[in-house]
Amino acid sequence: MTDREPLHIGVAGLGRAFTLMLPTFLQDRRIRLVAACDPREAARAQFVRDFAAPVYDSVEALAADPSVQALYLASPHQFHAEHTKLAARHGKHVLVEKPMALTLQECDEMIEACEQAEVSLIVGHCHSFDTPYLAARRIIDSGELGDVRMIQSMNYTDFLYRPRRPEELRTEEGGGVVFSQAAHQVDVVRLLAGSRAVRVRAVLGQWDPARPTEGAYTALLWFENGACAALTYSGYGHFDSDEWCGWIGEMGNAKNPADYGQARRRLRDPRWLADEARLKAEATYGGPAYKPPMLGGPTPAHQHFGPLIVSCERGDVRPQPDAVWVYGDNERRQVPLASPSVPRFEVIDELVAAVEQGRTPLHDGHWARATLEICLAMLQSACERRDVEVFGRETTVR
Amino acid sequence: MTDREPLHIGVAGLGRAFTLMLPTFLQDRRIRLVAACDPREAARAQFVRDFAAPVYDSVEALAADPSVQALYLASPHQFHAEHTKLAARHGKHVLVEKPMALTLQECDEMIEACEQAEVSLIVGHCHSFDTPYLAARRIIDSGELGDVRMIQSMNYTDFLYRPRRPEELRTEEGGGVVFSQAAHQVDVVRLLAGSRAVRVRAVLGQWDPARPTEGAYTALLWFENGACAALTYSGYGHFDSDEWCGWIGEMGNAKNPADYGQARRRLRDPRWLADEARLKAEATYGGPAYKPPMLGGPTPAHQHFGPLIVSCERGDVRPQPDAVWVYGDNERRQVPLASPSVPRFEVIDELVAAVEQGRTPLHDGHWARATLEICLAMLQSACERRDVEVFGRETTVR
Ligand SMILES: NC(=O)c1ccc[n+]([C@@H]2O[C@H](COP(=O)([O-])OP(=O)(O)OC[C@H]3O[C@@H](n4cnc5c(N)ncnc54)[C@H](O)[C@@H]3O)[C@@H](O)[C@H]2O)c1
Ligand SMILES: NC(=O)c1ccc[n+]([C@@H]2O[C@H](COP(=O)([O-])OP(=O)(O)OC[C@H]3O[C@@H](n4cnc5c(N)ncnc54)[C@H](O)[C@@H]3O)[C@@H](O)[C@H]2O)c1
Repeated sequence: MTDREPLHIGVAGLGRAFTLMLPTFLQDRRIRLVAACDPREAARAQFVRDFAAPVYDSVEALAADPSVQALYLASPHQFHAEHTKLAARHGKHVLVEKPMALTLQECDEMIEACEQAEVSLIVGHCHSFDTPYLAARRIIDSGELGDVRMIQSMNYTDFLYRPRRPEELRTEEGGGVVFSQAAHQVDVVRLLAGSRAVRVRAVLGQWDPARPTEGAYTALLWFENGACAALTYSGYGHFDSDEWCGWIGEMGNAKNPADYGQARRRLRDPRWLADEARLKAEATYGGPAYKPPMLGGPTPAHQHFGPLIVSCERGDVRPQPDAVWVYGDNERRQVPLASPSVPRFEVIDELVAAVEQGRTPLHDGHWARATLEICLAMLQSACERRDVEVFGRETTVR
Repeated sequence: MTDREPLHIGVAGLGRAFTLMLPTFLQDRRIRLVAACDPREAARAQFVRDFAAPVYDSVEALAADPSVQALYLASPHQFHAEHTKLAARHGKHVLVEKPMALTLQECDEMIEACEQAEVSLIVGHCHSFDTPYLAARRIIDSGELGDVRMIQSMNYTDFLYRPRRPEELRTEEGGGVVFSQAAHQVDVVRLLAGSRAVRVRAVLGQWDPARPTEGAYTALLWFENGACAALTYSGYGHFDSDEWCGWIGEMGNAKNPADYGQARRRLRDPRWLADEARLKAEATYGGPAYKPPMLGGPTPAHQHFGPLIVSCERGDVRPQPDAVWVYGDNERRQVPLASPSVPRFEVIDELVAAVEQGRTPLHDGHWARATLEICLAMLQSACERRDVEVFGRETTVR
């Protein structure tokens, strides 16, 4: 790995998702950012300053740049399909943010386009890339605890009160916590269940008229192997379940419980009340309130998506940001996890393995389509107040 | 209250449930134990030593004792209906352990018998009597947080590995965690939802062939007011959710995480392998391994039934053993709970108020019947893999 050229990545969409991947891009020697595009001038200017690399105002132009080998698509949900197909048309590998797209039809087109172009398609970052879940999966796979039977996953965050673009608050355009957060939670649970989901039952919560999209849900998910998962999510910024993860936040950061209510307070600032989308843009890459990542400091722990317990026939497994707890019949033990040298290095692992060794990624289009299928089924189930069948990879157009 | 005679209670069933109520009976001046019955000789002998009071070998005889005003029925589930009807026939008030009975038919008969005899019927102790839940209910009732929308309740215990009578491991005879533990969890959740349950969906877990009854479940519960609750329980003695309750155990006791696996180790002792029911009896009241309660010491905290979050429109409420946490839009605050002077004093509150002031108890027969209805619906739902409608108090024979 050391004597080869890093993979050349072009970035489409220099917003919040990009800023969250930036520490990885800056520190992981296996890749290099070589170009970018964003309709926001300020973001393009900052990219030029930071990387002395070409910027474009369209994804088409970025995809056409011959120096780009792979595109990281961090544009809003509604562009994921179009941008993926564009990338494929130009023979570029694709790392596209979650959720993969807004409809299964779009997913099918993305998968087909990448297969025809013989480029890799990976959907992420997604929290099922996080080391604690991958480590838990290995412990489960070892068989020492028997089959997975029940998974309890929950996450209580302030998601709904982070600054949003208008469409992020409209479910029919991909807004709300099902598209943005179940995309993580369902993915993690699927990884741990190790089986195809077959049925979904969900209830949605829409409790704040000022944020008229889903801010909460609870769901049951059945798997082909007989396992069942219970998922609960609230993004209403009240109880914070990071308390049950040692006050380590989603990004592996140490959290101060005294910061309670910050997200809501920020939004209430009269300067932002009128134009929340501007607040979002101003705080992100290139904006006047943007703060570049602090590199080199210790990352306290791994990223995660809330407290989770996998119950197997003969023991429970509980992935935590710093260790996986294993509760066997005779003893409980902690499998410590080395602090991540580079955050989200797992995404680059998968990308490089796919592009350079031709390995089929875990988080490929088929995988991510199955997660979207479940998210859509959650919306449908809640609306129709009944179970909805899902089919998983099998129905995917190949 | 001070210048009146204490309520005279006769106890039917001097087993584990009785030992858990004993600290209350010994310390609460509002009641006095005046007689008891149990088929176990050793238990009767101990009662005579401890209380210098008459003992009987049948509930019939106990109920006929003119000094008894109320019966505490702590016999096995399958006797609750018969013993309640016996008590009513003798004009005695009834405090009967959870679950109320094994069938709705039995519940109806119990309710009718007590109504005809004009005696009070209270079902408990049940964890919905616990001060943290009653305090949470008052905070919800204040309206400051708006309506209840979603409840997440979970409990991970070693229930299934405590010593058991044979029928406690046979679902069709009332064994397993649905009859014994959902009876608590559903009751707590109903109290907090503050509305009639209308529908249930459940999945059961039966993972240990050596304990062939339900040891786990996960369920969704819908309420008339639109609230929804997600309940998860595992009694398989692996992850212990008291970790999320400050390592305070179900009985309000401080817990040592280093005791991991104790329940299973105890059962594996070759002396007990052959006759587990004897182990249960020997460790309980009158048995050679019985340890009387330590009185007067500080009770660290209130009893509880696991981590629980009530999400309301404008805030979350989290009852903990020492405080209720309230997470509002602007701040989180802790409503501290005074340590209980006498454990389970709340049960005596309700009993005395019913018997002496004619107040309708919260945990009356109608209330407890509705909880059993949900428990039975959970069994049916899991078996038929579909939602089961429930009806609550309304269908009760009056
Ligand atoms: N994995 C994670 O942790 C994570 C976190 C946040 C967001 N996301 C995902 O990333 C995506 C973007 O969300 P965000 O929160 O970063 O939004 P954002 O608004 O902060 O960023 C989106 C960026 O894309 C740019 N953009 C808009 N239209 C474009 C186009 N046609 N071509 C190129 N760029 C365009 C915007 O100017 C903006 O800079 C979403 O799909 C979201 O689900 C993932
Ligand atoms: N609320 C709680 O915290 C709690 C805790 C444990 C048990 N319980 C309930 O209490 C009841 C008893 O369970 P347990 O664990 O104490 O069982 P146990 O076996 O420890 O005690 C039952 C006692 O009843 C006696 N008994 C048996 N048949 C009898 C009869 N016909 N008449 C009178 N006594 C009879 C037994 O000899 C024994 O002493 C169950 O319904 C259970 O659900 C409640």
